[in-house]
Amino acid sequence: MTPAGSFEPFAKNAADSVGAWGESRLIASIRGWLGSISPRAPFGIGDDCAVLPASAGPQLITVDPVIFGRHFDAGVPARAVGAKLLKRNLSDLAAMGGQPTAAVLALTLDRRVDCRWLESFYRGLAAAARKFGVPIVGGDVAQADGVLAASLTLLGTAAGPRVVTRTGARRGDTIWVTGVLGGSLASGHHYRFTPRLAEGAWLARQPDVRAMMDLSDGLAKDLHALTPRGNRAALVEAALPRRRRVGTAAALTDGEDYELVFALAAKTDRAAFARAWDRAFPRTPVTEVGTFVAADRTVPGTLDLSAYQGYEHLR
Amino acid sequence: MTPAGSFEPFAKNAADSVGAWGESRLIASIRGWLGSISPRAPFGIGDDCAVLPASAGPQLITVDPVIFGRHFDAGVPARAVGAKLLKRNLSDLAAMGGQPTAAVLALTLDRRVDCRWLESFYRGLAAAARKFGVPIVGGDVAQADGVLAASLTLLGTAAGPRVVTRTGARRGDTIWVTGVLGGSLASGHHYRFTPRLAEGAWLARQPDVRAMMDLSDGLAKDLHALTPRGNRAALVEAALPRRRRVGTAAALTDGEDYELVFALAAKTDRAAFARAWDRAFPRTPVTEVGTFVAADRTVPGTLDLSAYQGYEHLR
Repeated sequence: MTPAGSFEPFAKNAADSVGAWGESRLIASIRGWLGSISPRAPFGIGDDCAVLPASAGPQLITVDPVIFGRHFDAGVPARAVGAKLLKRNLSDLAAMGGQPTAAVLALTLDRRVDCRWLESFYRGLAAAARKFGVPIVGGDVAQADGVLAASLTLLGTAAGPRVVTRTGARRGDTIWVTGVLGGSLASGHHYRFTPRLAEGAWLARQPDVRAMMDLSDGLAKDLHALTPRGNRAALVEAALPRRRRVGTAAALTDGEDYELVFALAAKTDRAAFARAWDRAFPRTPVTEVGTFVAADRTVPGTLDLSAYQGYEHLR
Repeated sequence: MTPAGSFEPFAKNAADSVGAWGESRLIASIRGWLGSISPRAPFGIGDDCAVLPASAGPQLITVDPVIFGRHFDAGVPARAVGAKLLKRNLSDLAAMGGQPTAAVLALTLDRRVDCRWLESFYRGLAAAARKFGVPIVGGDVAQADGVLAASLTLLGTAAGPRVVTRTGARRGDTIWVTGVLGGSLASGHHYRFTPRLAEGAWLARQPDVRAMMDLSDGLAKDLHALTPRGNRAALVEAALPRRRRVGTAAALTDGEDYELVFALAAKTDRAAFARAWDRAFPRTPVTEVGTFVAADRTVPGTLDLSAYQGYEHLR
C-alpha cells in the first residue's frame, strides 16, 4: 500500500529530533498526544507510580514489545506501530479470556528519533487504547544509541467466570483455530489485525473449551504448548485455513498470526458449537484443524508437525 | 572496588552467546535462574498472561529500565545490575508509601550477549526479589542489534491506609530528605542503595507528611514537582546532607540518589518528628533542608535553585 521507507523514524532535520526537544518538552507532548486516555496524576502519568483502583477479581498481566527492525520497519505507518504494540498485548489477554484494565509503556529511543514519528506513534496507540478501553496510566522514556523500542505492560481481568490457560487439553480433544493463517508480514496483517478479545471472552464461557493460546510463532511451534504430555497434534492439511496464496509450510510456520488456537472437549457436539460460533461471530471463521492423539499413533492423512519449525527468536 | 570492564556483557566466545543458545534453552534457563521467586504458570512465566490474585485495595504501578551505557557499564557486576533494576522501581513505590506485589520483566538484547552475564543478572534480580518479597510473574525476551536493556514493571499496594503523592505541600511546610546526597555514580551508591520502602511506608502513616517523591535526577530538579504553585523551595546550603567529598552543586544535581524528599506540615513539632524517626530508623539520617516560601520572597542565606540544573534525559 505504502512505499517501503516512507515512515522513516529518524529525523532528517536535527531540530525535529527527540534530542533537540529534550525531556521536559517531550513528556509534556506525550501527555497531549495521549489525551483523555491518559488519566491525570496520581491515576496516570506524573507521579512516582500510578494509582489504580482495586481489582474486581483475579488479574492478568502480560508484557510485549515492538522493536524497530524486528516488529516494524520504515514501511509501517507510525500510527500502526503504536496500535500494534497495544494489540499484540491484547491478543495475549484474549488468549486467556481476559479484558484489559490498564497499560504502562516503556520507551527506549535514540536521540535522533523524529518527534513527528513519535507523535504519530502515540496518537496511534491512543486511538487503539480508546477503541479497546485501555487507560495508559504510566510510562518511562529512556535514551539508548541506535534503538527504537517500546515495551507495553498490560493489566486485565477475566471477562467472565473463568480464565483459560494453555493447560487442560486431553487426548481426543479437537483442535480449532480462528481466522486464517500465514502470510502475516507480506499482507500487513501483522499490524492491521484485530485482537480476538470478544472471541476469547466467548470461548472462555464455553466449558468445553479446555485450553487456549494465541498464535505468534506459527501453529507448528505454538501448538506444542497446548499438546498434553504423551500426545501429539494430528492436523489435517486440507483443513488448515489459509490466507490467499499461502502454502502449508507458511500456514504452519509464519509468525504473527494473532489468532486463537484452542482445544475442544472430545464429547462436544461440534456442529452445534460451530453454529453457536457463527451466530456470535458471523465475520470470523473458526475451523477444526485436527485432534490430539497418542504420541506413538500414526493417523493416515495427517501432517508430521516435527517437519515444520516455527519462528525461532534470538537466532 | 572492581576494575572497570571486568563485567563485559558481550561474549568473547560465540558459543556462550544468547544467539548460540537460542530462545528455548534461554527461556528454560531463565526460569531456573529465577528459581522459587518465579511462580509456576499460570501464576508466573509460561502462559499468555500471568494470573495474579485480586488486589486487597488500590494498586500502584510503575515502570523503569536499566540500559547498558546509561544505567550501567562493564564496571558494574551483572548481579548488581539485576538488583538495581528491581530496586529503582521499588524506590518509586517507596516514594508513595507502597509495598510490592509482583513484577514483570521485558528484556531486549543483542544476540552477542554472554549467557553467563545474563545468568548473573537474573540471579541478582532473583536475590533482590526474594529479599523484598516480589514475585517475578512474567516477562519477554526480544532481540535487537547493539542493545542490552531491561525494563521492569512493578505492581504494589499501599503499605498503610494512605498513598502519598507529589501534590499536597503548602507554603511554610518544611522540606526533608533521607540519607545523603550526591556522588551516587562515583561511590557505587547507584547500584548498592537500599530502596527506602520501610521509611516510605512509615512516612505515609504520618498525616503531617503532605507530599513525597524519590530523588532520581537531583534535588534541584526533582523538587520542582513537590513545590506548590506560587512558591519556591528555600534551601539552606549548610543543611544539605552530602556524601563525603560532595560539593553543593553535586548534592543538588547528581542523579540516582534514590532517597526520599518530603514536605512536613508547618505546624508539626519537628523535634518530636525527628525523635520518632530516629527511634524507627536509627541508621537512616533524615534532614530538614528548607522551607516552601512565596515565589517572590527572598530569604537571606538560602540557595537560588534556578542556578542548578538536574540530570536532563535525552540530551
